[in-house]
Amino acid sequence: MEVHRSLDAARAACASRRASGTLGLVPTMGALHEGHLTLVRRAREENDAVAVTVFVNPLQFGPHEDYERYPRDEAGDAALLEGAGADLVLFLPADEMYPPGHVTRLDQGALCTELEGAARPGHFAGVLTVVCKLFNICTPTRAYFGHKDFQQTVVVRRMVEDLDMPVEVVVCPTRRDPDGLAMSSRNAYLSPAERAEGLALVTALGEAQRLFAAGERSRAALEAAMQRILLDRLRRPADYAAVVSPDDFSRPELAHPGDVAVVAAPVGPTRLLDNHALGAKLGPFSPGP
Amino acid sequence: MEVHRSLDAARAACASRRASGTLGLVPTMGALHEGHLTLVRRAREENDAVAVTVFVNPLQFGPHEDYERYPRDEAGDAALLEGAGADLVLFLPADEMYPPGHVTRLDQGALCTELEGAARPGHFAGVLTVVCKLFNICTPTRAYFGHKDFQQTVVVRRMVEDLDMPVEVVVCPTRRDPDGLAMSSRNAYLSPAERAEGLALVTALGEAQRLFAAGERSRAALEAAMQRILLDRLRRPADYAAVVSPDDFSRPELAHPGDVAVVAAPVGPTRLLDNHALGAKLGPFSPGP
Repeated sequence: MEVHRSLDAARAACASRRASGTLGLVPTMGALHEGHLTLVRRAREENDAVAVTVFVNPLQFGPHEDYERYPRDEAGDAALLEGAGADLVLFLPADEMYPPGHVTRLDQGALCTELEGAARPGHFAGVLTVVCKLFNICTPTRAYFGHKDFQQTVVVRRMVEDLDMPVEVVVCPTRRDPDGLAMSSRNAYLSPAERAEGLALVTALGEAQRLFAAGERSRAALEAAMQRILLDRLRRPADYAAVVSPDDFSRPELAHPGDVAVVAAPVGPTRLLDNHALGAKLGPFSPGP
Repeated sequence: MEVHRSLDAARAACASRRASGTLGLVPTMGALHEGHLTLVRRAREENDAVAVTVFVNPLQFGPHEDYERYPRDEAGDAALLEGAGADLVLFLPADEMYPPGHVTRLDQGALCTELEGAARPGHFAGVLTVVCKLFNICTPTRAYFGHKDFQQTVVVRRMVEDLDMPVEVVVCPTRRDPDGLAMSSRNAYLSPAERAEGLALVTALGEAQRLFAAGERSRAALEAAMQRILLDRLRRPADYAAVVSPDDFSRPELAHPGDVAVVAAPVGPTRLLDNHALGAKLGPFSPGP
């Protein structure tokens, strides 16, 4: 496994792999967990070579968010990636990614200002800008993202289509811990009590899925059921709990299979998010220890 | 010379050329003149193959601008390109470039809202978006632009650098008619009287160059000299007449060699623009017929 720490080295290493075959890219912010490794293994199956970028992208953090304290563990990440079969690990330096005078931004209007975008202004412009850069630096055949960050998968797919980017976007299912909590690097922030509270998100999604499977199609009823659970368990309103169309986040009166139940809520000082495509199985999960 | 009229065909033809050598791209809006052909010839010299796109990009026109009446002449363009040695001519369909739901935009803040951007809100977001698309569709080794559209060359270079696009931007000198008027597809709009008035722009630039060569360094003095000429000859204020730094359009008190004198003014119903890098020769030009 090669490890590179400059843009020039990353570019050269990726170009060399691309010259002789297909290249799968897994963009990450590090602090890797089983969810990331699932993406790496999938990329391993589908490509001649696999590159993983590790870059905590300042552009997608708001001024009062957790950029500074976001977990970083380069040695641990490298060991996990070696085990998962990555060929290239690219730790990208922020000063090379955003040198002085860097001003170009990508944006998508309403797609970037709803849901997570409403809670985190500028977040998706930052995501799109860095993903565009990573695609240009690494020129992957395929790029792998987790369904956990559902809105991110939608805006990245939209960007690729709108800008005719020569890359295939592959979205992999959310990985969950045995108790049902969606895996996230930010779960490291949770105390045991907060972690138990955080299960309210997957419980809410499970209830929406149960109602949908039983025939409930009213979007309002499905959303109300989720909000009630989140309010009861977290004792404050969720940031959002909605059932949205997977293409444009529209909310028609009646829900359809494939519509996505999305939830986000603060749990202690941490913001958690999760989602579930209605119609698919969710759980059951085993209670925690 | 191959002619293609769909995105898929354009993509395949460019990929085929790229697989066996370098590819020069000349993005145009058609209605070609000697300025465009200079770019094609330069691309011809520097690359194994040359592709020219012809696409009147609706995204870079304001709602009350000349998108509908912008000159179009596919047969004439194809004949000129054959003569200049293009290998691929790509007439791109607007409904494939911007299908329903297309929302992704590129922008650069102040770089896109000054000078031409102040007169044409959204213009450069439209330019950057289409150029990004063309780069992804054609994957050129080099792309050629005329210095006539000075601000465009700055924002395109900035985009390529900021987003790590794997393409070299080549800027070629402005071509002028014998009387000094900068070549532009929009010159076709001018009556003979308007054309004579339009020479005020190059006269103003020539005066700034004359003063600069004589030692004048005060930006205010250089700008005032240009504005006076434009006001005298056109009998209304120019949109702008400024001396700007070539990187960020800043206007320091003292001008330096390489700073760019930029002018734009309405001439009859037509808006003309021109520029000149201070220190370089400009003219003399022969009077018109």
